Amino acid sequence: MSIGSVPLALVIPAPALLEHWQGHRRLTRRVIDTFPEDQLFSFSVGSMRPFGAMVTEMITMAEPMVRGIVTGEWKQSLTREARPKEEILRLWDQSTEKINTLWAQIPPDRFQQRMTAFGQYPGVVYDLLLYVIDNEIHHRGQGYVYLRALGIEPPPFYERQ
Amino acid sequence: MSIGSVPLALVIPAPALLEHWQGHRRLTRRVIDTFPEDQLFSFSVGSMRPFGAMVTEMITMAEPMVRGIVTGEWKQSLTREARPKEEILRLWDQSTEKINTLWAQIPPDRFQQRMTAFGQYPGVVYDLLLYVIDNEIHHRGQGYVYLRALGIEPPPFYERQ
Repeated sequence: MSIGSVPLALVIPAPALLEHWQGHRRLTRRVIDTFPEDQLFSFSVGSMRPFGAMVTEMITMAEPMVRGIVTGEWKQSLTREARPKEEILRLWDQSTEKINTLWAQIPPDRFQQRMTAFGQYPGVVYDLLLYVIDNEIHHRGQGYVYLRALGIEPPPFYERQ
Repeated sequence: MSIGSVPLALVIPAPALLEHWQGHRRLTRRVIDTFPEDQLFSFSVGSMRPFGAMVTEMITMAEPMVRGIVTGEWKQSLTREARPKEEILRLWDQSTEKINTLWAQIPPDRFQQRMTAFGQYPGVVYDLLLYVIDNEIHHRGQGYVYLRALGIEPPPFYERQ
């Protein structure tokens, strides 16, 4: 691919970005699973949100973002109240499957186009996707601190399988 | 670009990935600058490393990774002892400039090639770069918790300019 005579480097193929994200999602799932059930929506440090609230935010951003990119329809239907860990994990796994299905439906030229996510976040599609991934990494890192503060060793950051 | 008859989507152009990373680096710089000097290498939560040690790790990974990708030579010369915040910020800014210079020297087809970073981390080049960016986001998120635990409001996550 080139623009005029300048070659444009293909940095990350679309399937590789999905696999990169799903690797992060497998790690985040392990962090959720490691979290004590009775602390998931109650424990926090420095008046921050509990980790369960951060994970619920991730769920409301991830699959709805990819769905919006494919369909142009932006919906975040999940409410943010406390839920049992088992339900959180079930919602997580459902999102994982839906993301895989929807990703394959993203038209190849869509990644370079501008959209306004959820009616209020304008950006190029790859930036919108990176924002969701980065937000997950950011809050999962905070979950690591919560686990350490609870005396629990988090899963290794580099393990993504 | 295509493989056989299957079009391969260009998800992120190389200059956009650099700009994405430098946006994160601007935010991380603000988090460092917000951190109290006397807590940078001493404060921590749950027996974790202080934020200054995490930032020193980021500095030893960032520019050396890009330099290795360009030259094939892998060097991490910075020692990890405590330093004044002013020196950390100076090293950070030097890295920022060097990354910009080196990035322009990455051959376009290099991003898809496999390399072994620092003699021990094998991977496709885009994954090696994403690992460094993700590691920065992960530990910066932990710095956010440290700041909140110190009663200090961190800079907004979405602000990258």
